Amino acid sequence: MNAHVRLSGVRPLDKAAGRVELIHGAGGKAMAQLIEEIFARHFQMIGTGDDGAVLPSLGLNERLVMATDAHVVSPIFFPGGDIGMLSVFGTVNDVAVMGARPLWLAAAFILEEGFPLADLDRIAASMAKAAREANVAIVTGDTKVVEKGKGDGIFIITTGAGALPEGIAPTGAGAKPNDAVLVSGTMGDHGMAIMSARADMNGLEAGMGFVSSVVSDAAPLHDLIARLFAAGIEIHALRDPTRGGLGATVNEITFQSGVGMLLEEAAIPVLPEVAAACEFLGIDPFYLANEGKLVVVCPEAAADAALAVMRAHPLGKNAARIGTIGIVSDTRPLVELRTRLGGRLILDWLSGDPLPRIC
Amino acid sequence: MNAHVRLSGVRPLDKAAGRVELIHGAGGKAMAQLIEEIFARHFQMIGTGDDGAVLPSLGLNERLVMATDAHVVSPIFFPGGDIGMLSVFGTVNDVAVMGARPLWLAAAFILEEGFPLADLDRIAASMAKAAREANVAIVTGDTKVVEKGKGDGIFIITTGAGALPEGIAPTGAGAKPNDAVLVSGTMGDHGMAIMSARADMNGLEAGMGFVSSVVSDAAPLHDLIARLFAAGIEIHALRDPTRGGLGATVNEITFQSGVGMLLEEAAIPVLPEVAAACEFLGIDPFYLANEGKLVVVCPEAAADAALAVMRAHPLGKNAARIGTIGIVSDTRPLVELRTRLGGRLILDWLSGDPLPRIC
Repeated sequence: MNAHVRLSGVRPLDKAAGRVELIHGAGGKAMAQLIEEIFARHFQMIGTGDDGAVLPSLGLNERLVMATDAHVVSPIFFPGGDIGMLSVFGTVNDVAVMGARPLWLAAAFILEEGFPLADLDRIAASMAKAAREANVAIVTGDTKVVEKGKGDGIFIITTGAGALPEGIAPTGAGAKPNDAVLVSGTMGDHGMAIMSARADMNGLEAGMGFVSSVVSDAAPLHDLIARLFAAGIEIHALRDPTRGGLGATVNEITFQSGVGMLLEEAAIPVLPEVAAACEFLGIDPFYLANEGKLVVVCPEAAADAALAVMRAHPLGKNAARIGTIGIVSDTRPLVELRTRLGGRLILDWLSGDPLPRIC
Repeated sequence: MNAHVRLSGVRPLDKAAGRVELIHGAGGKAMAQLIEEIFARHFQMIGTGDDGAVLPSLGLNERLVMATDAHVVSPIFFPGGDIGMLSVFGTVNDVAVMGARPLWLAAAFILEEGFPLADLDRIAASMAKAAREANVAIVTGDTKVVEKGKGDGIFIITTGAGALPEGIAPTGAGAKPNDAVLVSGTMGDHGMAIMSARADMNGLEAGMGFVSSVVSDAAPLHDLIARLFAAGIEIHALRDPTRGGLGATVNEITFQSGVGMLLEEAAIPVLPEVAAACEFLGIDPFYLANEGKLVVVCPEAAADAALAVMRAHPLGKNAARIGTIGIVSDTRPLVELRTRLGGRLILDWLSGDPLPRIC
């Protein structure tokens, strides 16, 4: 985020009624003003004015972890959050599920000409609050503006860097037969909150009224994860089930690890109002995105301890064991779901897309 | 870039006639296939399948530098380059002008529904080639798809990480009175190449025909910069004059450093065909973007050595001394330009925006 300077003799931005203009992305005074009055005011940027940020050294035995995520969620404000908060927590969580301590974020903005400055300011404030909560600093950034009709209000792309201690390396490829499969809480809250917000936008309040109490679970998972490691729990696979929901995540883990998985439908926590809305809409909560939940695969012997650690944390109070690795009829990397009625079905990756732009 | 798996029993992507669909951003099998058959095939990703990349440690006395850049250039293919090459070199250069050795890139893609897979593959190949040229690895990424009409084909957001040796810290704030101001080559090539490409698109070949030979100067500057440091040249400010051109960069440096600057118009290198086109169009080449050029501020005594180092490098053969720091009528941080006719004018930041989406 270059061009941050103290400007003198320039009229302040009209943050009440002003709008983003192409000039705000042109690398001149107007861009410098936007950066100063909105981004630099909210974020703890390092080396503003330069093209990047110089960061402190990692610990001697720590390795760097990098993760990036583009956020295009629609609508940008939804029950329980907004695109700003999501852009911080989403990337913090990607770094944290690698086993690393999230430290720094870079944030790039692609703004559509005409986007209200009031919304931009509100979103920047939300990002700053989320960064404080996740204990990371937004250290550098970039702003681009595209013509009206060539974007959709605001896209935020964050890249996180974190420190991975020696000896920790959970990936999706470490699941072993007989391992336990756990989740940290209810599935589908974020996806249903977005659907509910879209229904409201489309004037469908009547039909979707019963889900209006569902809020996004967007939250930073670094502390919950740190507690699992601090308790000495051996973790074979760790993932946050975002896009594609639990269904995508468990299939990724089985594909990467070359194992099967058997899940118990009745054991998978789902909020009653999410379950009811899913039934009404004919969709499956296991394909709805989560933004503050974990899937943990660990040795059978560690499962109870892992559940206890999660349940003692505000973000894991509904943690549950939902299945087991490798207990399938053959060795193909498939996920089987034992239904409430005792039948078995394949929980495949979703092949349709009921909900684009969920994050 | 999660969800990278070896897929079996899936028909290969139609890279000749296929198009990006919403399902390619949904976190399921189609997204995994897109990542496998396009991105993972071209890039040296680390830990594909996981949510981020674990990177090797930096050297003992090295600090981490991070820089991020969203690329929205239009058109995406232009004389001398494309959005993919630009997305690599742009961020490599942001890291390099901080004095750091660029090492790794994260790449996020925001694709518009309907974007041709053939173009995506061509762009990914161009990014891979650029990364090899810049000696960096594209280690992790993310893909999002937005509905037709909510984006513009492809936006690429890259974030770079690099290693900064102890003792090196050029910023825009280090310029001192009597320092020399140098550039590594001709100004405005990239901006004019984009203008020329847009004129072609708009069927204005006749009027703009004389600039059709101008190609973008997009290039990775890390090696040229490394040679300046290796030669022991004391550098007070280092910047690549991209958006807003030389005009924006010299004003940033004077603002950040709290000094004035006097430039000699006749000393600033501009290609004859760029100068002619600028005159025809009534624009100033000093506000046109560059993507492979440096502005260097160094002590007067080091200027000749710095010029010699630059001129010995393929990317610096037209390097020139263009002015001096601090020789202004007062102490305000202004840039004055002595014109060819001997007059003086203020080279302010551009206040209009002749050319949005230049990078």
